[in-house]
Amino acid sequence: MSLIVMKFGGSSVGDAERMKRVAKRVLERKQEGNRCVVVVSAMGDTTDDLIDLSKQIVVGTPSTREMDMLLTTGEQISIALLSMAIQSIGGDAVSFTGWQAGMRTEAVHGKARITDIQPKRVLDALDQDKIVIVAGFQGMTDDGEITTLGRGGSDTTAVALAAAIKADLCEIYTDVDGVYSTDPRIVKVARKLKEVSYDEMLELANLGAAVLHPRAVEYAKHNQVQLVVRSSFTYNEGTHVKEEAVMEQGIVVRGIASDKNVSRVSILGVPEKPGQLAKVFGALAAEKVDVDIIVQGGVRGGEADTSFTLASSDLEKALVILRRIQPEVGFNDIQSQSGLVKVSIVGAGMVSNPGVAATMFAAISELGVSINTVSTSEIRVSCIIESEKLADVVRALHTAFGLDTTEQAFVGGPSERR
Amino acid sequence: MSLIVMKFGGSSVGDAERMKRVAKRVLERKQEGNRCVVVVSAMGDTTDDLIDLSKQIVVGTPSTREMDMLLTTGEQISIALLSMAIQSIGGDAVSFTGWQAGMRTEAVHGKARITDIQPKRVLDALDQDKIVIVAGFQGMTDDGEITTLGRGGSDTTAVALAAAIKADLCEIYTDVDGVYSTDPRIVKVARKLKEVSYDEMLELANLGAAVLHPRAVEYAKHNQVQLVVRSSFTYNEGTHVKEEAVMEQGIVVRGIASDKNVSRVSILGVPEKPGQLAKVFGALAAEKVDVDIIVQGGVRGGEADTSFTLASSDLEKALVILRRIQPEVGFNDIQSQSGLVKVSIVGAGMVSNPGVAATMFAAISELGVSINTVSTSEIRVSCIIESEKLADVVRALHTAFGLDTTEQAFVGGPSERR
Repeated sequence: MSLIVMKFGGSSVGDAERMKRVAKRVLERKQEGNRCVVVVSAMGDTTDDLIDLSKQIVVGTPSTREMDMLLTTGEQISIALLSMAIQSIGGDAVSFTGWQAGMRTEAVHGKARITDIQPKRVLDALDQDKIVIVAGFQGMTDDGEITTLGRGGSDTTAVALAAAIKADLCEIYTDVDGVYSTDPRIVKVARKLKEVSYDEMLELANLGAAVLHPRAVEYAKHNQVQLVVRSSFTYNEGTHVKEEAVMEQGIVVRGIASDKNVSRVSILGVPEKPGQLAKVFGALAAEKVDVDIIVQGGVRGGEADTSFTLASSDLEKALVILRRIQPEVGFNDIQSQSGLVKVSIVGAGMVSNPGVAATMFAAISELGVSINTVSTSEIRVSCIIESEKLADVVRALHTAFGLDTTEQAFVGGPSERR
Repeated sequence: MSLIVMKFGGSSVGDAERMKRVAKRVLERKQEGNRCVVVVSAMGDTTDDLIDLSKQIVVGTPSTREMDMLLTTGEQISIALLSMAIQSIGGDAVSFTGWQAGMRTEAVHGKARITDIQPKRVLDALDQDKIVIVAGFQGMTDDGEITTLGRGGSDTTAVALAAAIKADLCEIYTDVDGVYSTDPRIVKVARKLKEVSYDEMLELANLGAAVLHPRAVEYAKHNQVQLVVRSSFTYNEGTHVKEEAVMEQGIVVRGIASDKNVSRVSILGVPEKPGQLAKVFGALAAEKVDVDIIVQGGVRGGEADTSFTLASSDLEKALVILRRIQPEVGFNDIQSQSGLVKVSIVGAGMVSNPGVAATMFAAISELGVSINTVSTSEIRVSCIIESEKLADVVRALHTAFGLDTTEQAFVGGPSERR
């Protein structure tokens, strides 16, 4: 008998029919002899509908405390309905809000982090052989304020709860049936991975693979929670995410990720004095501009050039900040380029396989695409390239690293994230 | 500086525009120098929409615990939006769910009674000069279960909270601008009452005057909470509900209430033995058939006839129960009549004015209407009559007791109850 946490996102419970299907799925898992805790997100468009309602009433930005009060109703509706749905097909279920399930968070609204979990009520209900339904994405501060966990919230709720109750497995049900070697919408011969390590998953998640939120993966790694990513629509075996993932024979790259809408900014002629770079990136961070790859060239004549990449949506904001601090930092010029993409290869096997980066560069060059910027980690190589040939590049890399398969990928509805 | 509880029902906050109007109204009250606590219901159709959603998922009756979990989101949405709306026009507001406001209830779902109020957070927020918004209709058990108060819930929340925080006044905002001498839709010359006593209001509320729930009036009487019923759409002075209401010169009847869809059941030839009536009405009560007026005639030849009235919607159910117990109780026959109405006159002045009932009977007889059944209390006389001439009867009584006025009544949208 295993103790399992099952997490269903918003599109899995998007309407009454899907909610009933999830109820059936949960009851089956229970009837197989498992003890089940289910974490569920708000139904489909509920969150967007609530945000729209707030916009009809408030011009500008509403208080984050009241937004949390508003948005947490979405998950509360889901847990009540899922509990009813399970009861109506003969299961014994009970629902808990975040605060009832003991999810304590820091006193921040809109993006609180979990500080502690006191899952007494969850454990008591499990002892009574009940299926426990918990609202994702939400918690309570020590002062009894309702909070939300921000992006990736329901994944994080599931993983954190799995750690707190020492679950054997945390199953993330989503609209794809696992983690793929790359986006199956781009590469038809993408391979579903049987296993992937926490570190690899973290790189893939950070690089835009939407199946799991990086924060949840980090939490899982830190607490050694075994994850499975699987489809809520099929019974296909999913992808296991764990500490040590077995590499298939002859394969060093686990997956290929790509990220559109990348821009690059170059700051030319930064005077070579201590603290100049800190000033530049401190000013950007202070206004929440998220910088990705930073490249610092050599120093020539007491001056250096620095480049960095960022999401294109932040480009305008970054340029305004840079122009403001230009007199103080004393650089000569700012150049920028948008319409770029980032393509990355990820695999724990790279560490012991020299030449992986060279293979990547060669595959890209053969398509006549020039590489703008490169960044590497122990298990990842990322290249910034111009965007027109992105799909071709991903396909070429997929083939070059021996990832092509003949299996047909299952791809469901729109990706879900919360 | 007064401490005021303001209660707004579902139709007062039915959409974004109305919500903004309520926000303005609340802020005005605050700027007049009052400390304000606002109790609010779910927006317009929210509750019905949530019930519909549950019906798409569950066939039959869902668990009352999960229904409470589901329905309490309606008020939570309202408090968040109202708080935002007040903030956006410059007020300092904070919202609390029922459990955050300290509304403790018995451990019953769907119709819990308030057992205790621990309004520490409400008082703290008032001390910080905030406008406090509290979700009506909901509370929490000692075990941390979310409950609802059932019918009249938000009125009761407002009155109970007013008592707990020792408010100077509890204002019930509704879609009519006060309590009328009778339904202004039936009698155009209905008179808005300046004052009405708790007991009178209780009789009127029980008799179907929809402006205030009887349970809230009882709670107000018990705790001596001064109420004002007023319109959320106009600034007209409302009706004060208090212990001693001043009667206008020469008026003994405060108001006239009517209730449609009444049926009458007669049980003929009940053997005269102790306990027979208890058996009959015990069986009806056990299946939640609400009996109104009971008339027991004299005993003839060891047998008696008993009649009672009830809502027509319960008639079929009552007849089934009576037929089932007929062999055991041993009466001869059951007769029933539907299509009746109840018309009542209410006024504390009746006690010291003999002849009020006679005036009522005469006014009804003059219209050629025969009186089927009569019931009286110290401050009320009710007559059951056939329904065709109800409006004429109410108008005749209104004139006979000197209640006609020349003022035009304000009547808003559909009546709100929750």
